Amino acid sequence: MSAFGGFRGIAFLTDYGLEDAFVAVCHGALLGIAPRARVVDISHLVAPQDVRRGAHLLASAAPYLTPMVFLAVVDPGVGSERRAVALRAGESVFVGPDNGLMMEAADRLGGVAKAVVLDRPELFRHPVSATFHGRDVFAPIAARLFIGTPLTDVGSTVDAGSLRRLQPPVSRRGEDWVDAEVVHVDRFGNLVIHAGADDLKALAVERGGRVRVGEVVAVVGRQFASVASGEVVLYLDSDDLLSIAVNQGRADEILHLGVGDVVRVTACASPG
Amino acid sequence: MSAFGGFRGIAFLTDYGLEDAFVAVCHGALLGIAPRARVVDISHLVAPQDVRRGAHLLASAAPYLTPMVFLAVVDPGVGSERRAVALRAGESVFVGPDNGLMMEAADRLGGVAKAVVLDRPELFRHPVSATFHGRDVFAPIAARLFIGTPLTDVGSTVDAGSLRRLQPPVSRRGEDWVDAEVVHVDRFGNLVIHAGADDLKALAVERGGRVRVGEVVAVVGRQFASVASGEVVLYLDSDDLLSIAVNQGRADEILHLGVGDVVRVTACASPG
Amino acid sequence: MSAFGGFRGIAFLTDYGLEDAFVAVCHGALLGIAPRARVVDISHLVAPQDVRRGAHLLASAAPYLTPMVFLAVVDPGVGSERRAVALRAGESVFVGPDNGLMMEAADRLGGVAKAVVLDRPELFRHPVSATFHGRDVFAPIAARLFIGTPLTDVGSTVDAGSLRRLQPPVSRRGEDWVDAEVVHVDRFGNLVIHAGADDLKALAVERGGRVRVGEVVAVVGRQFASVASGEVVLYLDSDDLLSIAVNQGRADEILHLGVGDVVRVTACASPG
Repeated sequence: MSAFGGFRGIAFLTDYGLEDAFVAVCHGALLGIAPRARVVDISHLVAPQDVRRGAHLLASAAPYLTPMVFLAVVDPGVGSERRAVALRAGESVFVGPDNGLMMEAADRLGGVAKAVVLDRPELFRHPVSATFHGRDVFAPIAARLFIGTPLTDVGSTVDAGSLRRLQPPVSRRGEDWVDAEVVHVDRFGNLVIHAGADDLKALAVERGGRVRVGEVVAVVGRQFASVASGEVVLYLDSDDLLSIAVNQGRADEILHLGVGDVVRVTACASPG
Repeated sequence: MSAFGGFRGIAFLTDYGLEDAFVAVCHGALLGIAPRARVVDISHLVAPQDVRRGAHLLASAAPYLTPMVFLAVVDPGVGSERRAVALRAGESVFVGPDNGLMMEAADRLGGVAKAVVLDRPELFRHPVSATFHGRDVFAPIAARLFIGTPLTDVGSTVDAGSLRRLQPPVSRRGEDWVDAEVVHVDRFGNLVIHAGADDLKALAVERGGRVRVGEVVAVVGRQFASVASGEVVLYLDSDDLLSIAVNQGRADEILHLGVGDVVRVTACASPG
Repeated sequence: MSAFGGFRGIAFLTDYGLEDAFVAVCHGALLGIAPRARVVDISHLVAPQDVRRGAHLLASAAPYLTPMVFLAVVDPGVGSERRAVALRAGESVFVGPDNGLMMEAADRLGGVAKAVVLDRPELFRHPVSATFHGRDVFAPIAARLFIGTPLTDVGSTVDAGSLRRLQPPVSRRGEDWVDAEVVHVDRFGNLVIHAGADDLKALAVERGGRVRVGEVVAVVGRQFASVASGEVVLYLDSDDLLSIAVNQGRADEILHLGVGDVVRVTACASPG
């Protein structure tokens, strides 16, 4: 895995947006060291400095891209004392700030097997800007890892337990209810909540049965086309998370919910 | 064409947007099978579930990208009984839902020469999500076609006549008028209508002459810089469709027209 | 540099947007001639026809991507008499309209060493559209330069002094003040002004000292995290230009400034 050719490419996630040249500048920094690397842009439209959203996106993409070098930069603490790190999980490596951004993805690939703090400035691009570590610190290290530099050559080993983690989203379960935090609203207005197949099972509602989701009644279905137009459906999404959709409508608007809100899902005996 | 190397790459069109990881996940699904394929993103900003817009975009891009594997997913019927298909047209193949999305593009490459329904689940990614056939059904098949799997090995042949088609846009012609549907409004506010060089000829207006477009008068020109600032111009666009523009202005706003509207173009004897 | 393999790829900047197929069509035009070229998209979200913004973006990206073939198309004069040109600067070449778009970038790579006007229509794609020279003129030439065609084979040499230049942004300096034009507002609301390290030095304010920026007081810092939340900071950005940011806020909104505005920065004796 650490040999050249072991990774499919470098997968790149930031909050840099697509209107500036920041992303292209980092591509340049990567190509200067790893001229043959494929670069896959995961997304650069993470809301500015929204580490939680970046972490969720990276985790949802990583299992389908591995083995990869993941370069992830959502970094409100750039220039402060937050550490710059690289870590290995499964057959992939991750490079970015130590602010929790990469941990959920690493967990999905089997957990952090090894972590280093990027303390070898001779590997950085100089002068190192105070505000653009994507270009000067993280991209050069990601490119070096891609071309085969071992993880332990780009920094000093640190205890994986010392890496910062985000507060996990709310997810609680009672006898006939689940409380779960909305972790994402997708482009179609579908709400992804921090609950999974186990939680659905615990509610003991068959497919086609009904649950109360906040103040509305939803059908448990396979997906949004399982219900009539305008009806609400609760289903396991393509990422194995419970999602709430409205067939031919926007669930976020109809349920008045957004990221960070907690919604209660309750089994219904009778259809509301 | 079916041999490895016969296609330039895999060209990818969806309504997935750029804020989520859906596109990157599909890139991962492609690279897992076809690690050396070039992937060209046509656009992922088709309005959600707007099959007609996707079809128009795909058709406008295909002639310039062929020979390609085209992977196109705008799929409001995902999870319902709509068929998943692959088809050959000219030197390219197309993979996507059988909802009309790919037919206009196939027509522009010479029409459907062969079509198969994707009925070999052993070629899909498992478990197959109910909502994300781009990742689990279409991308794996597109990747296999790219690496040289023959079309007839990915599914059972079906009659090309059985493939679904979209209702064609309105396009009617009288003695001195053309009625044509607006099929696209581009980023600059230019209106593209479903009429071409023949229709312009039928109006018998020379370049520099005038036509009535809805309620305004337009000059027939080579392009938008043919007229004074604020004037309306009717011209053949880079795709050989009649377009309406306002020099240094937005035609959509000035003419109050959008996609799906039908506009009448009439020859003018005198300049309005 | 003119031999195949001398460039890292083709870097592509336009105002075409990401909702249409224009960008993909140009990728197709490039690949038809240079099937193995890496194409790096710098940005396609330059505001329509905003040559000045395109020039600034291209200049900010070029030093990190060189040696490249730069294909740049922000071209309000397409179809008029503006010239189409290619030029060499440093180890890179640039292809685009002669409207000033490429000059700031060329200057950053050491200035124009040679320039040609694209007057060999046999190298274009035919028929040449009146409105889409990106596809028909510029992309084919960029692809040819990438595969090794010498610059002097794609057109006739012209005097570099004859190339059009944009009006430079305002930048004036007095005894204890600097007037500088806002040249960019980035995604985070940070204001980039046309002044640099020399101007800051001339103000003779130490790091941690205070300056007046328009009507507010700012701290001179290393970057936006140098100050308390809500405070204004003046710093040298990653591109060596003076920038104005508000920690955890948007400087553009708080200072009511946008691109083209001129702001006065004055040394403060006492913290206002």
